[in-house]
Amino acid sequence: MESKKYVYLFHEGNATMKNLLGGKGANLAEMTNLGIPVPQGFTVTTEACTKYYEDGKKISEGIIQQINQALSELESITQKQFGSADNPLLVSVRSGARVSMPGMMDTILNLGLNDTTVETVARLTNNPRFAYDSYRRFIQMFSDVVMGIEKRKFEDELDKAKEDKGVKFDTDLDANDLKSLVGKFKSIYKNELGKDFPEDPKEQLIEAVTAVFRSWDNPRANVYRRLNDIPGDWGTAVNVQSMVFGNMGNTSGTGVAFTRDPATGENKIFGEYLINAQGEDVVAGIRTPQPISKLEQDMPDCYREFIEIANKLESHYRDMQDMEFTIEQGKLYFLQTRNGKRTAQAALKIAVDLVQDGVLTKEEAILKVDPKQLDTLLHPAFDVAELKKAKVIAKGLPASPGAACGKVYFTADDAKVNHEKGEKVVLVRLETSPEDIEGMIAAEGILTVRGGMTSHAAVVARGMGTCCVAGCGDLNVNEKERTFEIEGKVYREGDYISIDGSTGNVYGEAIKTTTPEISGYFGIFMGWADEIRKLKVRTNADTPRDAEQAIKYGAEGIGLCRTEHMFFNEDRIPAVREMIVAKTEEQRRKALAKLLPMQREDFVGIYEAMEERPVTIRFLDPPLHEFLPSEDEDIKDLAQEMGIGFDELKATVLSLHEFNPMMGHRGCRLSVSYPEIAEMQTRAVIEAALDVRKRKGYNIEPEIMIPLVGEVKELKYVKNIVVQVADEIISKSGTNLKYHVGTMIEIPRAALTADEIAKEAEFFSFGTNDLTQMTFGFSRDDAAKFLKDYYDKKIYEFDPFQKLDQIGVGKLVKMSAELGRTTRPDIKLGICGEHGGDPSSVEFCHSVGLNYVSCSPFRVPLARLAAAQAQVKNPR
Amino acid sequence: MESKKYVYLFHEGNATMKNLLGGKGANLAEMTNLGIPVPQGFTVTTEACTKYYEDGKKISEGIIQQINQALSELESITQKQFGSADNPLLVSVRSGARVSMPGMMDTILNLGLNDTTVETVARLTNNPRFAYDSYRRFIQMFSDVVMGIEKRKFEDELDKAKEDKGVKFDTDLDANDLKSLVGKFKSIYKNELGKDFPEDPKEQLIEAVTAVFRSWDNPRANVYRRLNDIPGDWGTAVNVQSMVFGNMGNTSGTGVAFTRDPATGENKIFGEYLINAQGEDVVAGIRTPQPISKLEQDMPDCYREFIEIANKLESHYRDMQDMEFTIEQGKLYFLQTRNGKRTAQAALKIAVDLVQDGVLTKEEAILKVDPKQLDTLLHPAFDVAELKKAKVIAKGLPASPGAACGKVYFTADDAKVNHEKGEKVVLVRLETSPEDIEGMIAAEGILTVRGGMTSHAAVVARGMGTCCVAGCGDLNVNEKERTFEIEGKVYREGDYISIDGSTGNVYGEAIKTTTPEISGYFGIFMGWADEIRKLKVRTNADTPRDAEQAIKYGAEGIGLCRTEHMFFNEDRIPAVREMIVAKTEEQRRKALAKLLPMQREDFVGIYEAMEERPVTIRFLDPPLHEFLPSEDEDIKDLAQEMGIGFDELKATVLSLHEFNPMMGHRGCRLSVSYPEIAEMQTRAVIEAALDVRKRKGYNIEPEIMIPLVGEVKELKYVKNIVVQVADEIISKSGTNLKYHVGTMIEIPRAALTADEIAKEAEFFSFGTNDLTQMTFGFSRDDAAKFLKDYYDKKIYEFDPFQKLDQIGVGKLVKMSAELGRTTRPDIKLGICGEHGGDPSSVEFCHSVGLNYVSCSPFRVPLARLAAAQAQVKNPR
Repeated sequence: MESKKYVYLFHEGNATMKNLLGGKGANLAEMTNLGIPVPQGFTVTTEACTKYYEDGKKISEGIIQQINQALSELESITQKQFGSADNPLLVSVRSGARVSMPGMMDTILNLGLNDTTVETVARLTNNPRFAYDSYRRFIQMFSDVVMGIEKRKFEDELDKAKEDKGVKFDTDLDANDLKSLVGKFKSIYKNELGKDFPEDPKEQLIEAVTAVFRSWDNPRANVYRRLNDIPGDWGTAVNVQSMVFGNMGNTSGTGVAFTRDPATGENKIFGEYLINAQGEDVVAGIRTPQPISKLEQDMPDCYREFIEIANKLESHYRDMQDMEFTIEQGKLYFLQTRNGKRTAQAALKIAVDLVQDGVLTKEEAILKVDPKQLDTLLHPAFDVAELKKAKVIAKGLPASPGAACGKVYFTADDAKVNHEKGEKVVLVRLETSPEDIEGMIAAEGILTVRGGMTSHAAVVARGMGTCCVAGCGDLNVNEKERTFEIEGKVYREGDYISIDGSTGNVYGEAIKTTTPEISGYFGIFMGWADEIRKLKVRTNADTPRDAEQAIKYGAEGIGLCRTEHMFFNEDRIPAVREMIVAKTEEQRRKALAKLLPMQREDFVGIYEAMEERPVTIRFLDPPLHEFLPSEDEDIKDLAQEMGIGFDELKATVLSLHEFNPMMGHRGCRLSVSYPEIAEMQTRAVIEAALDVRKRKGYNIEPEIMIPLVGEVKELKYVKNIVVQVADEIISKSGTNLKYHVGTMIEIPRAALTADEIAKEAEFFSFGTNDLTQMTFGFSRDDAAKFLKDYYDKKIYEFDPFQKLDQIGVGKLVKMSAELGRTTRPDIKLGICGEHGGDPSSVEFCHSVGLNYVSCSPFRVPLARLAAAQAQVKNPR
Repeated sequence: MESKKYVYLFHEGNATMKNLLGGKGANLAEMTNLGIPVPQGFTVTTEACTKYYEDGKKISEGIIQQINQALSELESITQKQFGSADNPLLVSVRSGARVSMPGMMDTILNLGLNDTTVETVARLTNNPRFAYDSYRRFIQMFSDVVMGIEKRKFEDELDKAKEDKGVKFDTDLDANDLKSLVGKFKSIYKNELGKDFPEDPKEQLIEAVTAVFRSWDNPRANVYRRLNDIPGDWGTAVNVQSMVFGNMGNTSGTGVAFTRDPATGENKIFGEYLINAQGEDVVAGIRTPQPISKLEQDMPDCYREFIEIANKLESHYRDMQDMEFTIEQGKLYFLQTRNGKRTAQAALKIAVDLVQDGVLTKEEAILKVDPKQLDTLLHPAFDVAELKKAKVIAKGLPASPGAACGKVYFTADDAKVNHEKGEKVVLVRLETSPEDIEGMIAAEGILTVRGGMTSHAAVVARGMGTCCVAGCGDLNVNEKERTFEIEGKVYREGDYISIDGSTGNVYGEAIKTTTPEISGYFGIFMGWADEIRKLKVRTNADTPRDAEQAIKYGAEGIGLCRTEHMFFNEDRIPAVREMIVAKTEEQRRKALAKLLPMQREDFVGIYEAMEERPVTIRFLDPPLHEFLPSEDEDIKDLAQEMGIGFDELKATVLSLHEFNPMMGHRGCRLSVSYPEIAEMQTRAVIEAALDVRKRKGYNIEPEIMIPLVGEVKELKYVKNIVVQVADEIISKSGTNLKYHVGTMIEIPRAALTADEIAKEAEFFSFGTNDLTQMTFGFSRDDAAKFLKDYYDKKIYEFDPFQKLDQIGVGKLVKMSAELGRTTRPDIKLGICGEHGGDPSSVEFCHSVGLNYVSCSPFRVPLARLAAAQAQVKNPR
């Protein structure tokens, strides 16, 4: 016997039990306890799912017993019985993970129907057509979703029935037609599986629960989890809920609604509903729904009750709610509520409004916006001038804001492949399904023919911040031919279109996109984030232009200025190459002398842009062969250009060849071999600072960062060069200038010996890109090939180059922060890898007590918010 | 004022103060306290040397005062005064580090001579010629060694003096000639330095002490330290000792002697002396010395006293002594004693004799032999007489010890073919690759132009015990013409050369080699080592031949059997390549099926060789592109051979290209992508074990090792495949077979998460080659280029690929051993990197509690001894 409780009736749970009951289950329990009309039921816990996998994909007998026990209790609550000829219990079965997660099995309705109960339902509702329609839908759904039989087989049979009868719509089929269809559906089932369709509702139920557990592990769910950092071992709960029917005539209906507008954040109820329909009809986008306001006219009492409950839910959860409801013969039921997904604009407005209304504190409000969403605020809009001249060829629903322009592709695969080739792509689909997820990620924008604001395409696109126009029925899509046609004009695969997810407009041409203005809510909200956070946010910027951009986004300094990007400039690279082919120190110094004024000018520009904000300048990092061509033909050209022999240059190229360039002669190793490089760079850094201070009066304290250090003596050697050159220049200038010398921690050995390193380093900046490569032992360029297998086989659940691996790499970061502080308690600690712009990594940086994160300009707002959230969750 | 004591009179020290006084100083103090006649003096400590460098290469005033104070005490002990016209004190100044260390300044004699004291010495000894000869020698030595004036300048002057007088020998010059030479020498000094030769003995002394300190840092000393693992911060002491004169006529003399024969270990006094000579004359080899036995006839009293003291010293130090002595007008003085250097043969015999005589315990005796010395016992050496006549034509790195002589061949195939014809072959390559393996096996010796001590050639050669000289850049190899050229001389295919893998010397001729006898002493001594040590010693062996060799040398199991070496065999590689170009799993399985019987046969051979000793088999490790050619021409040939298109094969080669192969698709990552590889290898391992057990009755427990693991789920994934296949085979066999699955710890992340990894791994084997690469962030192939700069600049003092970096890499090893044991207290821990054959690394492995080290067969005795020494020094 199982002693652990794996099944909870709704009244046994509450909203705090999300981890165990899933979001949906916990909220159903909470609503039950709030006295809101909810069709009763029970939840099989996420732990049961985990156990299912631990037990080798089997539901244990103990859990089955607990389900049966809950079922009898449900029967006594509802006064209905499974399989009863008098008063049969029908249920829906839905998955429900901790966080809402498309990709898994969604819903099975009307479970409990069989040849006996269908007759009873027909009799009780006095509506045999409804009973048999529900039955045939249930068989199809069960066969497809639970048993994996192709949907098409059933649809073909349905089409045939209509054809035979000479009618066009499903609604033209009567009860007898549907009854005979049920027989045919059962034959398909038996043909496919070699056994009869299960008449026993308990058997149906266990199979359905198992199917939900199984769907947790399907490829689409895995892809979604990886993209959204959801651990694979969370598992999903299963909600078994007694059925109510929105399709019992014109006093019935079903709908979804938000307490505020999810696109703009405006504080008014927003939603859609369908009369005489079951829940899936709204989402599937088969019929076009009515706005929720229409309900007030159709059923004023229901509407009033609905609004009352909606307000109650928003106050209770203190957040905008996304609700599903059904009206069964005039009686209102809530099937689900959850915090609603919203656009970044809406998220900011709602958060600010809730604070200003005294509902939330600033700290609570800060947690209401997903940092990743801010990205969408910085996404492109159409160029206004071009837009004016452009012609709208069709109009759909403005499902996810933003503007997109690209070539049309009709399948997710084509979108993905052509995106990988570097094309900008707009994905056009009749409707999207979870299988399309990778194509949707690849696309600049998504355009669908069917479906509403809450269709799959709309929900997913908003989540990703990708522009989407949904339900654009004007389009005649021919998926086979890969064309669509609007008013006689045919658009083919590869043609340019533009779509506007904020208006629903579709344009038959390319329109330039630009970055939008940021609203006042953004400023207020981010101001709160800045008040709260302890972690500073710097930017990675190599040019004055990037630096200015980043300051606009709130950067407080430069955490990483890569000097090699300057070296690649067209006007510098000849001198760089001259330096590389130099045979003597003297020749090398001559070439470096040419670079000095240019490099100094670079730094002058950056200091001027940053004013008095701190600037960390990293010395030359890449291996020298990166500055030379590798193909004979290019070597020949360059040799001629440089006025040296081909053989000589070829010999240099060969001598610089490395087996593993990532682990080669680069970083501070270059300055150990050629101290004159560090001398030149020091000179440029210090002279530029003196110059800008003199001319502008800025108090500049340059931070010089020595890369790729693995041993304190190595740092000391290069630091000595820096200090000697810098002090000489400063002393000659007759003034004073403070400067700092620190290092990247990007080699595991540096992390392991950080106490030693800190003796020489005034600051550490964690170079988590390289540190991740070395700690995992794979190079980013090469790993792409096999990481796919790792995701498929669930060895890795996320890309460690995007999200900091806290167990391995993070352990090194934590260790070095601690070791560094034992030697130098006031050592300044930052991070300048890609991870500086990833929310969970920012949270980690906060928790180990770093002073700042540094990320690309575009990600600065995200990092500011993530830092504030980290402080709220874990004050320091 | 210095409060610290930097200067010790001899009677203030003793033998335990080696770190402070240096070896020489400590022994002079000890002899003084034993009442042995030692010319008195004082020692300036190693700490004074360290302070000299800390103070920016300056001797502090405080230390100078202490020297002057010691000097006055010495004057009162000897009743002589510095610079006195009546009774002048003369001293020698010698360096003396903790361990004997060539490369530094050695000796300055007769310091204290000046124009005044030389006359006094002439008068007191009644020997003006001796006085002026000493004076001119002193000026020359001081000018050369202390002030850095070229020796040649003085020698030219001496030659001129002899020429002018028309004589041939120095001894033909009389006192007046030498006096005038003194004048000329002083002029040279003044010309070179622009100041007079210092007449003040105190000034002479301080300059000489400074010169000794300075010489600690000269390039020769640095190279020696690096080769011998001597830390740069030890510093050297300086011994100032009053002079005695062996050149005061026929009742004077000087000599060196050993208490036992340093070549054979025979227990009889062994030495040489010269009548009427100063110390350096014996060593310099200008006059031929007499055997020490001759002293018994010349000066029987002195001889008796000498023997008495020699015996006393050996008993006191309980080791063979190397002594210097001087007889001044019939009075015997000991100038130095130390434990004598000896051959490996002698070391073993002396150690065993001393135990059998009850002088030493076995534990003490174990410490008397340097493990590295054992190497020379296991490899062929050149015939001594022939070697003397041979000319070194080039010098490379001493990559694998031993001597080899044979005909030059430039390809592995030629080497193999001609070896099969019965020729002795030396394989000369730019660098070797895994495809050369058969040629390498066939060769007596391997000579490469590129690559360092850890290049492919070096690693494989050491593994096979084959002599190898690597990185011999002097060779201009023309592979097409099959010649190489050195300094204008061309050597062709088929010419004889000889190479010495212990020195790196290359000879352009045939030199006879001899195989050393291994004496009974070896067996007795190693038996004691085995009794004492706690650490097991296994071997890295891929073939039955290697396994048998290793067992002879005392290996207790195989710690690393690399399966890829089998894959490169001529009869396997076609199937391996077929597997690689396979487009489907089915094709891949077909190719693997061809490999299975061969791989099984490999393991059968190894199990039979190892009988019941444990065998750890590592699954396929290298990236697949290593099995394919990279040049178009070779691809064309192979495509034809395989019956596929060039384009197809070329595409495969390109698709397998990696930017950083070291961090690419290799190790367990291969089995994650292609589980069928692990399946085949498991099948071969288990079926072979069942077969051998059945036929031979051996109780075999195979250990399967999954390489390159960085994450426990990765290990679990591959382990599941192994366990499934293995259990199925075992269960089908109807018997039982225990087997173990473990992993390499060679990725930093594996070390950092070893507690997790240990949940799945029954054993860890530290792959310290890769772990060193990843931890330092440099690949050993590429690092060779810049590590030279690191040694020159004293950033690294040793090669971390040869000697385990205990601070960084060692920290990871220690951490994972501890983490591993928290999860699995009885986890078996070993090391299988190159470091398993390095004594200091073996000591480290002992100290962190590993169960075994594994090294190449030829290093097994070394590891056994090093393990025993570790246990004696640090019992566990």
